[in-house]
Amino acid sequence: MDIQVIGVRGLPLIQRGDDLPALISEKVAFEDGDILAVASSVYSKAKGFTRELSAIVPGADAVRIAAKTKEDPRFVQAVLDSSTDILLEYPFILSELPSGHIGVRAGVDHSNVEDGRLIILPPDPMAAAAEVRDAIRRITGKDVRVIVTDTCGRAFRRGQTGIAIGWAGMTAIDDYRGDTDLFGHVLEITEEAVVDEIAAFANFIMGESHQGVPAVVFRNCRAWNGHDNVYFMPAEDIIRTALKENKKD
Amino acid sequence: MDIQVIGVRGLPLIQRGDDLPALISEKVAFEDGDILAVASSVYSKAKGFTRELSAIVPGADAVRIAAKTKEDPRFVQAVLDSSTDILLEYPFILSELPSGHIGVRAGVDHSNVEDGRLIILPPDPMAAAAEVRDAIRRITGKDVRVIVTDTCGRAFRRGQTGIAIGWAGMTAIDDYRGDTDLFGHVLEITEEAVVDEIAAFANFIMGESHQGVPAVVFRNCRAWNGHDNVYFMPAEDIIRTALKENKKD
Repeated sequence: MDIQVIGVRGLPLIQRGDDLPALISEKVAFEDGDILAVASSVYSKAKGFTRELSAIVPGADAVRIAAKTKEDPRFVQAVLDSSTDILLEYPFILSELPSGHIGVRAGVDHSNVEDGRLIILPPDPMAAAAEVRDAIRRITGKDVRVIVTDTCGRAFRRGQTGIAIGWAGMTAIDDYRGDTDLFGHVLEITEEAVVDEIAAFANFIMGESHQGVPAVVFRNCRAWNGHDNVYFMPAEDIIRTALKENKKD
Repeated sequence: MDIQVIGVRGLPLIQRGDDLPALISEKVAFEDGDILAVASSVYSKAKGFTRELSAIVPGADAVRIAAKTKEDPRFVQAVLDSSTDILLEYPFILSELPSGHIGVRAGVDHSNVEDGRLIILPPDPMAAAAEVRDAIRRITGKDVRVIVTDTCGRAFRRGQTGIAIGWAGMTAIDDYRGDTDLFGHVLEITEEAVVDEIAAFANFIMGESHQGVPAVVFRNCRAWNGHDNVYFMPAEDIIRTALKENKKD
């Protein structure tokens, strides 16, 4: 069966306190097994995961880094507040978040929000995905799968792509270990990060300015089995180690 | 209009000399504007971009690296032959290809091919995409867009995802520079790597064992404007620089 990909259009500008799952459910006739991708930015706005720039007092590290990156020290402070480990300070802050996600500027954003306000990523994006999933089941009776997406740069290639920061009703990774290829060989490439592949295409549908499409529904997608260990342990992450080594110089 | 994503099923096992665009065109009623994603592995098999392991004589570097990676030195030699710059030797070879793509083991693969044979990436993947596009126009009269995909690991996150290594009829990057967000601010995130977002989802449809689905058609996708500079210049690539610095130690 062909897969359908449906951009959810016509949602109002999301405000703090809005019931995002209810608003989406008004626009989509969900079916069991649908995958709903939601932009973390609208989830955060609905939940009030935003900060007033004017209320942030930058510390010494934020002032020091902001002098290099030419950003507002209060913005840098918000990035540091969202981070558990800094891998790179310049030309942009690359840091780890409590979830394990490593991202540019900790996903702190001042696009698509009122002046003087920052959107931060949901502090617990896995719980966010589970909450949206549960709410849609409660509202519609349908068992959907949910991915919370962010937009992020990547190593070696210019341009941002969508990635998954939270998911519910599925594993992050489709684990082929032990499967065989068309010739009966045991597969070498064995772990496919399917949540990120779906989040990437969702981000293409949303568009980077989000074009009023903050959620995307995927219908007729296969199920898979695997695990959720999408984040490396620090010791096994070669690139993280190289960046930390260089930071010491 | 909703987007349809159609896995191309029922293709024979592709052999050297097969007319891949013709075989795909027999299975798909193309429409103008369709995006066809083709796995580089089947393109390479049709074109004979494969190597006999038994015909490869490993050099000193291949023997030295293979001792560390515990791989066949002839396989390592094939990886070195496909590479223009080595960023990392161990625990896996990470290298740059002539196209500018940086990938693990230079995309050399011994899955989905006969024993003792390796599939290498198309040496000119942009030309490969253009050739498939032209052939489909000749066969069907339809103006399709084409992406040649590979599967690749990435920094900071476990698991492989599909990426684009060649494309035709589109730019790699959707360039939003100068666009404004929902609140009228000029956008900060301005370059979206849409070819990779589409390739990622295509790879999800193909499945990592390729499950007999080596091509995927996307219908009703928007067009975009941008540029093709998806590969960083070495000097501006922070992570490449860090890896090269560490390699010197």
